[in-house]
Amino acid sequence: MKFALIQMPITKNKQENLQTARRYIAQAAAAGARVAVLPEMFCCPYSNSAFPVFAEEADGPLCAALAQTAKENALTLVAGSIPERCGDKLYNTSFVFDENGRQIARHRKIHLFDAHIDGGQHFRESAVLSPGCQPTIFTVDGIRIGLCICFDIRFPELFRAMALDGARAVIVPAAFNMTTGPLHWELSFRMRAVDNQLFTLGAAPARDTARSYVSYAHSIVCSPWGTPIADAGTEPNLLLVDIDFAEVDRVRQQLPLLSARRPDVYAAAFQS
Amino acid sequence: MKFALIQMPITKNKQENLQTARRYIAQAAAAGARVAVLPEMFCCPYSNSAFPVFAEEADGPLCAALAQTAKENALTLVAGSIPERCGDKLYNTSFVFDENGRQIARHRKIHLFDAHIDGGQHFRESAVLSPGCQPTIFTVDGIRIGLCICFDIRFPELFRAMALDGARAVIVPAAFNMTTGPLHWELSFRMRAVDNQLFTLGAAPARDTARSYVSYAHSIVCSPWGTPIADAGTEPNLLLVDIDFAEVDRVRQQLPLLSARRPDVYAAAFQS
Repeated sequence: MKFALIQMPITKNKQENLQTARRYIAQAAAAGARVAVLPEMFCCPYSNSAFPVFAEEADGPLCAALAQTAKENALTLVAGSIPERCGDKLYNTSFVFDENGRQIARHRKIHLFDAHIDGGQHFRESAVLSPGCQPTIFTVDGIRIGLCICFDIRFPELFRAMALDGARAVIVPAAFNMTTGPLHWELSFRMRAVDNQLFTLGAAPARDTARSYVSYAHSIVCSPWGTPIADAGTEPNLLLVDIDFAEVDRVRQQLPLLSARRPDVYAAAFQS
Repeated sequence: MKFALIQMPITKNKQENLQTARRYIAQAAAAGARVAVLPEMFCCPYSNSAFPVFAEEADGPLCAALAQTAKENALTLVAGSIPERCGDKLYNTSFVFDENGRQIARHRKIHLFDAHIDGGQHFRESAVLSPGCQPTIFTVDGIRIGLCICFDIRFPELFRAMALDGARAVIVPAAFNMTTGPLHWELSFRMRAVDNQLFTLGAAPARDTARSYVSYAHSIVCSPWGTPIADAGTEPNLLLVDIDFAEVDRVRQQLPLLSARRPDVYAAAFQS
């Protein structure tokens, strides 16, 4: 199954961003991609002041255009994320549309990015956004695929929950920065893949050092052995990767981790 | 607090191995170590045929000698692991003795190493050993320290349980091999440190390619940022590292992960 990770440049112009996304999605389809993935907040500058201004509802024109694009290109579109308005709340939300333009999943970022690193990145998403409250999985051609957004990858419990629910890959629209990217980006994608014996895929915006929030970029795909099998670098890029999901079975058979878990030992620590 | 990781050579002679360990422990004490750590199965070849032959009970002469060594050197000794006989069962067990020679903790390896990697390492500990059934934490000078053995590091739930129970470091006597070592040794120590915002310390046997099971070695210490701060290489080595536990507080304050967990979201996946 061919996946396309769209490492696109993002400007302050929503329509321009949408047109960029559509152009890459058409390229992905032409290259035979079954699934195309946009980065986190692909339509919008990554700032608390921009989120309310760029926000739309799930039945707004942006989602309609994305659904139409998926249908036109006959692929499943993991539409990065957008600031989603719902009542008086804003969420960081990833919508997924199938090849008929039907919305088949919606992930609202569960863990908001609040960090204040000495000499490094400061951000406080929770000042503006509300958190989601459930793991998300969808199915493409019978393969179960998990979905979460950026800071969600920090939490091993969430990946474990998706793996136990049958995920054989997890897709992560994301935008790590120049502090956390060099420290933890590749490491996180590799280790979540190893622990859960599935493919991990991260789609990030291209790097643009003129922005207030600079994306680390390096859209990535890791195998269930934890080996990075593709890295998009920092420039705008369409990263195409063929994934053989039989590899998931081979790894789980040779190095049985999921079946060797001892829930009886951990349970006490994981009560809500 | 100074830690000494003892990357010792291991032979087929139990008394020789004990003497090697005692010599390194005395060196560690002379260098000011507060805690000394031996590798997994430090007294015994790593094979299912050796475990029953080398096994001793908790009140046997090997543990008595280790307790005495801790007392003589006035340090806390994390005594790697030994094949422990208890009734008709064998465990892979790590005993911890304080500076008075008192046993203050005992970890029985929870996750036994059963793997059959194509073209790589095969092993089946569960053919001979029985698994432990609880996480282990002990205290040195008021600092809570987690303890687990080798394959236990494969399970993020176990590290999370220790972190939530107050661990600020986790010590892992281990013996990764020449298949899993290059793939996952450093990666695992780095990511468990990042996720749980604590120090991770792994003590392995020195590499000896003449053995049936070849240790990857590379005894390691990682900071709570996931940065490897010490690596013993492959030769016999005494790895001394000063750890500043205030770094744990700094990391947890700047990048709040443990406090940002959403147990309400994961709970359903972690019922026993």
